[in-house]
Amino acid sequence: MGKNGKNGNGKNGGGKNGKNDPAGWLTPAVTALRVGAVGPIAGFDADSTPGFSGSRELGEQLLAERGEVLADLQELLYANGRAGDNRSVLLVLQGMDTAGKGGIVRHVGGLLDPQGLAIKGFGKPTPEELEHDFLWRVHKALPPAGRLGIFDRSHYEDVLPVRVHNLVPQSEWEKRYAIINQFEKELVESGTTVIKCALVVSKAEQKARLTERLERPDKYWKYNPGDIDERGFWDDYLQAYQAIFDRCDSDTAPWFLIPANHKWFARLAVCELLISALSGLDLDWPPADFDVATELERIRSLDD
Amino acid sequence: MGKNGKNGNGKNGGGKNGKNDPAGWLTPAVTALRVGAVGPIAGFDADSTPGFSGSRELGEQLLAERGEVLADLQELLYANGRAGDNRSVLLVLQGMDTAGKGGIVRHVGGLLDPQGLAIKGFGKPTPEELEHDFLWRVHKALPPAGRLGIFDRSHYEDVLPVRVHNLVPQSEWEKRYAIINQFEKELVESGTTVIKCALVVSKAEQKARLTERLERPDKYWKYNPGDIDERGFWDDYLQAYQAIFDRCDSDTAPWFLIPANHKWFARLAVCELLISALSGLDLDWPPADFDVATELERIRSLDD
Repeated sequence: MGKNGKNGNGKNGGGKNGKNDPAGWLTPAVTALRVGAVGPIAGFDADSTPGFSGSRELGEQLLAERGEVLADLQELLYANGRAGDNRSVLLVLQGMDTAGKGGIVRHVGGLLDPQGLAIKGFGKPTPEELEHDFLWRVHKALPPAGRLGIFDRSHYEDVLPVRVHNLVPQSEWEKRYAIINQFEKELVESGTTVIKCALVVSKAEQKARLTERLERPDKYWKYNPGDIDERGFWDDYLQAYQAIFDRCDSDTAPWFLIPANHKWFARLAVCELLISALSGLDLDWPPADFDVATELERIRSLDD
Repeated sequence: MGKNGKNGNGKNGGGKNGKNDPAGWLTPAVTALRVGAVGPIAGFDADSTPGFSGSRELGEQLLAERGEVLADLQELLYANGRAGDNRSVLLVLQGMDTAGKGGIVRHVGGLLDPQGLAIKGFGKPTPEELEHDFLWRVHKALPPAGRLGIFDRSHYEDVLPVRVHNLVPQSEWEKRYAIINQFEKELVESGTTVIKCALVVSKAEQKARLTERLERPDKYWKYNPGDIDERGFWDDYLQAYQAIFDRCDSDTAPWFLIPANHKWFARLAVCELLISALSGLDLDWPPADFDVATELERIRSLDD
C-alpha cells in the first residue's frame, strides 16, 4: 500500500506492516477469523470479536479510516484493470437469514466506488438456471478485470439449503464439494483472489432481528415467513456449514467465520479481510502507455 | 417522501414541498437545468450554477444531507422492487472527456446502497456488439425492477462520436433520433423513469484536467492521447449535443444540462434531479404479504 501514490502515508491505521494490525487488532483479522483458528461453528460465539480488543466506538472509527484505505486499493485495482491487468477480487458472503449479508454489501461495499464493484445476489434458482449445472449462473456473475465482486449468497447455496433439504439426491450434492474446489482453483489461477466469509448470528439474535422486521412497517419487505421454517433446521445448517469449512477451505480460497451479532464488528472484519486481499496483489499505479513528455507538449500547445 | 417511515421528518432540506427547494436553490434543479431553460449548449457557461445561489461550502453540506434523502428513496424503490413493483430509474450520463461522468458515479452513486444500483459503462462497441443493432447492448444493461441504473455513456454515443466522425453513413445516424425516442418512450411506459444529464466543461477546464492527468502518475491511467484528438472536434460535438437536445428531449425522458466546471455543483445537481425522479414515483413501504399478527405469534413462541 505504500506504493499508492495518493495516500502513501498516514492512512494505514498505524500498523507496523501497514496491513492488518491497526490499533484495536491484537491478531490480524486474516489470522484470527480463519475457520481453522476459531474452531467448529457449532460452538462459535457470535458475540465475540476474535483478534479485536477495541470497543464499538473504536471499531466504527476504524471502519471509517480503513474504508478509505480500502477505497484507495480498490481504485488501484480498477486502474490496473483498465490498463490490461486481468486480476480481480471476489468476496463470497454466506450466512443464515438476518446474519447481515445485505448490510455488509451496503456498509462495506458502500465505502467504495460503485464503478469498481460487481455485486450479485443469488436467489432461488430460476427455471432457466435449473436447466444448467449449478455453476452456470455463477460463471456469468464473476467480477470482470479490475473489479471487486461481491456475491450475496453463492454457489455454496448448492451445498447448504440444497443439502439440508436434499433438493437434489445426496449422491449429487456430495460431488459438489470437489467441483467447487476445482472451480475455485481455476478461478484463482486465472487471476481472481477469492475470500469467503460466513456471517454467524446466534439464535437469540436472529429471533430479535426477525421480530424487529415485524414490528416496523419499513422492514416488512425484508421478512419472509419461510425464514422461521428454515430456523427449524438450525442444527442441520450448522452441519452443512461445517462441511464446507472442512472440505472447501484452502489457503488459496480461504473461509472466514465472522461473528455478526455486532454489526459494527462484522463490517470492520470484512473490511480488514478485503484490505488484506487487495494488499496481497501488491498493486502500483499502471505506467503510462504513452510518452508523457510528448503529450504534455501537445496539451500546452492547445488553445483554451 | 413524507411517507418514508424512517425519515419522514427533517431530512428534506427545509423545502416547502420537501422536494427541490432546499436552502440554496432559488429554482428547483429540475426546472433550472432543463435544456430548454438554459439555452443552446454553444453559449452555455460551464462555470455557472443555474438555480443555485449558495456557496461551494453550502453545496457540499447540502450534498451530504440530500444524499441521505436520496439513499432513503433508493431503499424504498428497492423494497418495492423486491415486493413485485417493476419500476426502476435510469440516469443517463453523457459529457465530453474529463467532464466528470465517473466522478458522478463515484460521488453520487457512492451515497447509495450498491445493491440497489445497476451501473453500466459503455465503451467503444465490441465486435460482438457491432454485429447487433446499436440498442442491443443497451437493452441488456437496463436496470432491473427496483434498481437505480446509471449509464456512463449510453445509446447517445451512437449519435455523438458516431455522428461527428460519420462512423456510419449520415442516412443511418439520422434515423437513430427517432429510434431512440421510440425506445425511451417504451422504456418509460414499461415503468422506468428516465433522466438524462449532459455534463459540460469549458475548453479551459478540460485543458486543466487533461494536464493534471499527465502531471500525476496516479492519473496516467485516465489519460488517453485520443482525448486531444477528440478535442479538435469540439464545435462538431457541440452541434451533435444540440441535436440530441432538440430532437430527444421530452417531458417523459428529459435532458438536463449540468455545468461541470465546479464538481461540487454537478454532483449536487444530479443528486437533486434523482431525488425529483424518485419522489415522482410516490413510493411507500410495501405492505406485508403475510399476516403480521400470526407471524409475530410464531416468532414469540420460538426458543432462543
